[in-house]
Formats: sequence, structure tokens, C-alpha cells
Amino acid sequence: MERLGTVTIVGVGLIGGSIGLALRARGLADRIVGVGRSEQSLSEAESLGIIDESSTDLPQAVARADVAVICTPVTRIAIDVRQAAAFGPDHLLVTDAGSTKTQIVASVEADPRSREKFVGAHPIAGSERKGPSHARADLFEGRSCVLTPTSNTNPDRLRRARAFWNHLGGRILEMTPEAHDEALACTSHLPHVLASALAGMVPVELLPLAAGAYRAVTRVAASDAALWAGIFLGNREPILRSLQAFETQLDEFKHALQAGDEAAIRSWWEAARNRRILFDHEPNSPEALAQTSWKTIDRTNAET
Amino acid sequence: MERLGTVTIVGVGLIGGSIGLALRARGLADRIVGVGRSEQSLSEAESLGIIDESSTDLPQAVARADVAVICTPVTRIAIDVRQAAAFGPDHLLVTDAGSTKTQIVASVEADPRSREKFVGAHPIAGSERKGPSHARADLFEGRSCVLTPTSNTNPDRLRRARAFWNHLGGRILEMTPEAHDEALACTSHLPHVLASALAGMVPVELLPLAAGAYRAVTRVAASDAALWAGIFLGNREPILRSLQAFETQLDEFKHALQAGDEAAIRSWWEAARNRRILFDHEPNSPEALAQTSWKTIDRTNAET
Repeated sequence: MERLGTVTIVGVGLIGGSIGLALRARGLADRIVGVGRSEQSLSEAESLGIIDESSTDLPQAVARADVAVICTPVTRIAIDVRQAAAFGPDHLLVTDAGSTKTQIVASVEADPRSREKFVGAHPIAGSERKGPSHARADLFEGRSCVLTPTSNTNPDRLRRARAFWNHLGGRILEMTPEAHDEALACTSHLPHVLASALAGMVPVELLPLAAGAYRAVTRVAASDAALWAGIFLGNREPILRSLQAFETQLDEFKHALQAGDEAAIRSWWEAARNRRILFDHEPNSPEALAQTSWKTIDRTNAET
Repeated sequence: MERLGTVTIVGVGLIGGSIGLALRARGLADRIVGVGRSEQSLSEAESLGIIDESSTDLPQAVARADVAVICTPVTRIAIDVRQAAAFGPDHLLVTDAGSTKTQIVASVEADPRSREKFVGAHPIAGSERKGPSHARADLFEGRSCVLTPTSNTNPDRLRRARAFWNHLGGRILEMTPEAHDEALACTSHLPHVLASALAGMVPVELLPLAAGAYRAVTRVAASDAALWAGIFLGNREPILRSLQAFETQLDEFKHALQAGDEAAIRSWWEAARNRRILFDHEPNSPEALAQTSWKTIDRTNAET
């Protein structure tokens, strides 16, 4: 990838901050500008060496940018994309890091100027922690990064978006916004709901009797409420479908337990265990990828 | 605690192995004997320095023991307790480390000789890993250890069981076997079921899109199938009740999402988040312990 001039990061939290650190560690940009609403978090990002300069004025901060990455909460992204597209130069690439895609892409594509500059993205990485102090230069290293181009996407911007995310360390997968949202409901949004349901259900007085399993299952329940309410509401139907599928899976166990059917319990458990072990050892196994209908772009081809 | 002579550990896996290492690290026993069914795992435990000698013959291995700790799967424990009580010396203390208590205690107490020597225990510590190679001397350090004495329990054995587990690092809590099983269904067995249900439900082809939340929630799904089938079947009714409570909690979310009620989603999430944060910072907070009806025994009083 040719070195970028100015990259403007809108929303310098865990994700935006990690993009800044990764750009810097890899020497990919001449200048990194951070945009935020609070002077305090911007000056924190500046003092952490994540950004070169900061601004609370998005239009001004994208005026000379080559790439604008929108890392605000999902409820803000489409607004910020449209503003960046309106005030940025003609050659600007706008991309994002939102956990939902269908609503965002539809809202962006309703505006011709934004549509021309935008490629939806979701780097599959994160944490229950928030803020630039938890940012890491290697957050995207080896992780999947989904791009959701549509038939309206400008081919030049798609090529540049692939290169951008790939050079931050991501393995590029391409699928429709709808396929993304259906998948992430299952792999990310549902686990968050389950974590929170368990954390909400175990009474305080039993916490002294909770240990490793409780700790692991509920870990992401410590995530930010406003952020996750936005994601849930932005992906309502797929999440409701994934809850339905989960309940079916749980019912299978419940019936086996009610019946005292040890063989059924063990085979239910073993099937899940094998899949979990596959995830640990080969999340991108040929077995898994052979079953996908996604376009996967490897590093050497990311710029072509 | 006066130094123990011989401690016999029946079942030298993760838990039994950690007991051996803790006894050794703290210089609590003259001799540690390991009992198992496979020569191979016993010689592994011996070469790891967990035990001084090993045997596949339980009656012989408890003949000169002061304490016998039964760390076999829950389906084996009552049988092994009864055998240890039958072949051990008069002053023998028999305790266990089983994740369920009601059935085990009832089965043990049906035998007068076993009843006289036994104190049910459950150190709240563990891992999805198994085998002596994962044993750690500090596994019980600062963790709760539940004792489940009944009106039949010999007071001398109870005093010695408190001292034994306390000196391994455990914080002693005492409750009935039934209260233990009801609580653990909620804090441990249910989280295992949820982990496994999610792992069983997410299709292989979506694994490349799974990240931190999936990883954390499903972690314990890698646990041993036979072990967990035994625990589930040994605690059926409390687990079914905890599943019911979980579904009620999940329904609250589902209705809020269906209604698009952001305020309800956020308050549902916040309540869970606050409890999870309490767990991280103060699992044994005054707030939590004030609500318990358990007897808690602190270190200085454990021997009185």
C-alpha cells in the first residue's frame, strides 16, 4: 500500500485508538487526526501517542484527509459518515468499524455523495473495556475484518478499503450487510445477551459461590450499556432469531436432563465441545471456510 | 493445624493434584499417597512431585491414612467414601471435592461407619482442563470451600475438615447439602449448560466471525463430557429450576427488544453489569455476605 497522507479517526476509544496505534506502529500514515466530542478523551489519546492532532470539528478534521474511519457508536455512524463525505475531499475513502451493518449501509447509501466514498467495515475484535487507554496496536492482527460492499460501492474505494484494513492486520472477508448482521447476531450479539442474562440472574448473595465458569460466561456483561443497547436495537430481528435458535438448543438439553438420558446429554455436550475445540485450534479451518459463501481476500491480493 | 501424617488422595486429576501440591507447598503432611485406576496418570502425578507414592488399591492406600480426600467424578464419590471409611483406621477423616452434595451425602450417611468419618466438601475452584499436569498449589487460595455437615456429622471430623480445607487456602462456608446444590446449580452448573448450548448452536462456518465474547462465554464447553453428565444428572431438579429462572431473565430482554424499548434494555443491562462489577471487585462483599444465611468460618477460627 502506498503510504497514506492524513487519516482521520472519528471516535478515539478502544477501536479508534487501536487503529491509530496500528497505523503508527506500521508507519502507514503521515498524519493521524482524532475527532471526538470531549476534549478530555482527545487529549488522553494525544498523550498516549495515538493521534498527532485532535479536533472536535469533524468537517474541518476531514477537509484534508485521505481516509476517514468512523469509530463512533452504531447509532452515530451513519450521521458521521455522511458528514465526513460531505466535507472531505473528492478522493476521500470513508469506512467504519460498526458492529451492525444493514441499517448503517442503507442510511449511508440513501445519500449519493456518501455512497460514492463509503465502504462498510467491521473488524471482529473488541473488549468489554472501553477508552483509548485500552487500545492496542495489535488488536486487529490476524482477526477477521468484514467488508460489506454493495452493488453501489465504488470499486476504487473497495480496493483501498481492503488495503487499509488488511494493512492494519485484518484478514478480509466480504459479504452483504444482511449476511454480516445475521452472522454477528449469532457469534457476538447473542453471547453478550447470554452473559448479561446470567449476570442479572445470579443473586448477589450467591457470588461467593461463583467461580471460573460464572466469571468467563459473564465477562462481557461488564460492557457499556449505551453501546450495546444501540447494537441490539440496530440488529433486532437477527438477534431475535438467534435467541430462538439458542432456546431450541437449550431445550434439547432440558429434555435430555428431564428424561435422565445420560447418552443424550453426553452426545449433546460432545458435539458442542468438538466445535469449541475446533474454534480454539482452527477458527479458520478449511472445514469452516469451505462452508462459507463469503469472498475471502488474502493479504497478497488485498491491493489488486 | 498439627502436621498430618498420611493424606491419601483418591483421584489425582486437576483437583486431587492441586490438593497434593498445596499440601506439599505448605508442608502440611508427612506423606501423600495417590490412588487411581490408571498406572499412567499415577506415575505422571508422581513424576510431577504431587504424591510420594501411588496405588491402585484404595483399601490398602487408606489403611494408615489420617485423611482421605475423594476427588473422583461425582458418580464415584459415595462408593469411594464408603470404601475408604470401611478400610481406614478409626480416626480417619474422609472428605471429598464433589460438585454436587445432596445425593452423595445421603448415600454416605446411609452407612453408619461412613457417616461417622465423613464431611462433605466442595472447593469452589476448577477449570475446563483436566489431569494432574494442570494442577496448581494455589488453586484453592482465597476461594470459597463449602462444607456440608449435617446433624449426623461427627464434631471432631467437622473441626478437622475445617482445618484441612482452610489450610489449603480455602475460605470455609457451611451450609446444607441441599442449599449447596441449589446455589451451585445457579453459579456453576447453569453457566456450563449455557456455554455448551452456545458452542453447540453457532455453526462451524460462522467461527471465523466469532471473537472475544464467543470465546469467553463458550470457554468451559471444552470441559469433560462424562464428568459433566454426572454432575447434571446428580443435580437435576435444581438445574431445571435455574434454567427456568434464566429463561425468565432472558424473556425480559426479549420483550424489551421486541418492543424496541431502549430504556428497558439499558436498565436490564445496567443491573446485570453492576452485579458483574461487584463480583470482580468484591465477590465476598459485605453486601453479598450480609444476605447469606451460611455459616462462614474465618481462618483464625477454623481450628476451634
